[in-house]
Amino acid sequence: MRQLRQITVIGLGLLGSSITLAILRTLKGVKSVGYSHRAVTRRKARRLSVAQKVVDDIHKSVEQADIVILATPIRTFENIFRRIAGSLPAGCIVTDVGSTKQESHRWARRLLPRNVYYVGSHPIAGSEQRGVEFARDDLFDGANCILTKTNGTRPDAIRTLSKFWSALGCRVKVMSPSQHDRILANVSHLPHVTVAALINANIDEELKFAGQGFIDTSRIASGPENIWTDVMLTNSANINKGIDKMVVELRKLQKAMNSGDEKRLRSLLKKARNRRTTLMKNEGKKEGT
Amino acid sequence: MRQLRQITVIGLGLLGSSITLAILRTLKGVKSVGYSHRAVTRRKARRLSVAQKVVDDIHKSVEQADIVILATPIRTFENIFRRIAGSLPAGCIVTDVGSTKQESHRWARRLLPRNVYYVGSHPIAGSEQRGVEFARDDLFDGANCILTKTNGTRPDAIRTLSKFWSALGCRVKVMSPSQHDRILANVSHLPHVTVAALINANIDEELKFAGQGFIDTSRIASGPENIWTDVMLTNSANINKGIDKMVVELRKLQKAMNSGDEKRLRSLLKKARNRRTTLMKNEGKKEGT
Repeated sequence: MRQLRQITVIGLGLLGSSITLAILRTLKGVKSVGYSHRAVTRRKARRLSVAQKVVDDIHKSVEQADIVILATPIRTFENIFRRIAGSLPAGCIVTDVGSTKQESHRWARRLLPRNVYYVGSHPIAGSEQRGVEFARDDLFDGANCILTKTNGTRPDAIRTLSKFWSALGCRVKVMSPSQHDRILANVSHLPHVTVAALINANIDEELKFAGQGFIDTSRIASGPENIWTDVMLTNSANINKGIDKMVVELRKLQKAMNSGDEKRLRSLLKKARNRRTTLMKNEGKKEGT
Repeated sequence: MRQLRQITVIGLGLLGSSITLAILRTLKGVKSVGYSHRAVTRRKARRLSVAQKVVDDIHKSVEQADIVILATPIRTFENIFRRIAGSLPAGCIVTDVGSTKQESHRWARRLLPRNVYYVGSHPIAGSEQRGVEFARDDLFDGANCILTKTNGTRPDAIRTLSKFWSALGCRVKVMSPSQHDRILANVSHLPHVTVAALINANIDEELKFAGQGFIDTSRIASGPENIWTDVMLTNSANINKGIDKMVVELRKLQKAMNSGDEKRLRSLLKKARNRRTTLMKNEGKKEGT
């Protein structure tokens, strides 16, 4: 990996400012620069010292950067690529932390100059909270981070970013943007859509009787709707298939229940329980933690 | 409330043994008796001292009881009512902790003698764990407990049980079994069915990329399938409606996404987020806790 001198993060929400904080903690020699278009965010970011430098000029913010990381809602990337294209130094690596990847690769190919290198990043970390005040320098510890590459992606850019995310504590995997978007539709986007539907199927008056189960199940629905609107609109083909699969699985349970098919019902519920047990084993966690 | 001398809990799983433990902690003068049909459970229960007495004879276990609490899977109640009917002392209150209530009231009316009083109880507490080894004497602290009554229910039996659950830390509400089953179908049973469907719509290979959101959302699916099969089969009419509502809500989100209707999508996601905020306020908790 070449020597990194400066990393610029565009967007100082929960993810962006957690990245700059994690850089401060783990990459001592590297200058961290944070850009936000909001004055109030810049003030908070400076007060909380989340980056070495917090700036209000997006062009200047990237001029000296070895890596530029977009941490804004996905559908802002297109315009940001356009705006920074002329200010990026040759050899700069551009990446982002968006939850969908196919569109980002398309925008990057079209809008970024040939002498800078785009790689998609998706650190699977975060929370339903938002804003610089919830930033944590250990947010990426132990998280999976998927890097996405196409045939045109520079291998040394992948290597550099892989080392960067590893330094922040991530387990890095590399795949194509289409594989990423298919997998994440299933394990992240569909769950969000499902939980939103579940809450919308209820009424406030009854939700007063919700127990801890509902509270845990519904947590992800507290995520910001602008972020999730962007996710859905940039991965609609995969999420569309996922919703259809959800309906099929709901109908299976409904049919077994309505026909009093105890054996089938038990087997469907057991399949779900066993799969979750496997999931928790993979996470290296014990049930119930 | 009349003087309670003995409370018998039938079934020493997580809920049953948490009740006997909570009695030991909060109702010092009351004798707690636990019955389990399994020798291994009785041994564990004795070793963990979850009750003052752990017995293997269901008839003797209830002969001196002021309150008998069934804490076994719902569809065992019918047979247990039949078995204990002849051993229950006059004036005894019989209740249960099952998650559905209409069937239990029907079985009680048909099978219990006229000189004992049935009331349904549903302490909304528990976890996806099972077994006496997970018992906690504070499991009911701050939990809602719904008591269910019909026209034939004795008011003093409601009063006694209300004081009992309050002593264990519950906030008690009283309603009809049909209202209970409708509300719980929405806030508890439908979420379980939905999460089981969500997991079944995924494949193990992809679940390796699941983040904390999926882990939290899917936790309830680790609940024992026999318990949940009983819940579904004894509340199928309400859950059936709930599944239909879920499909309607999923299709709304799908349609907005596929037609690129950003405003509608944002509004559906925002509705879910706002409702969860309200829910968390009702719980007296802050977002993200």
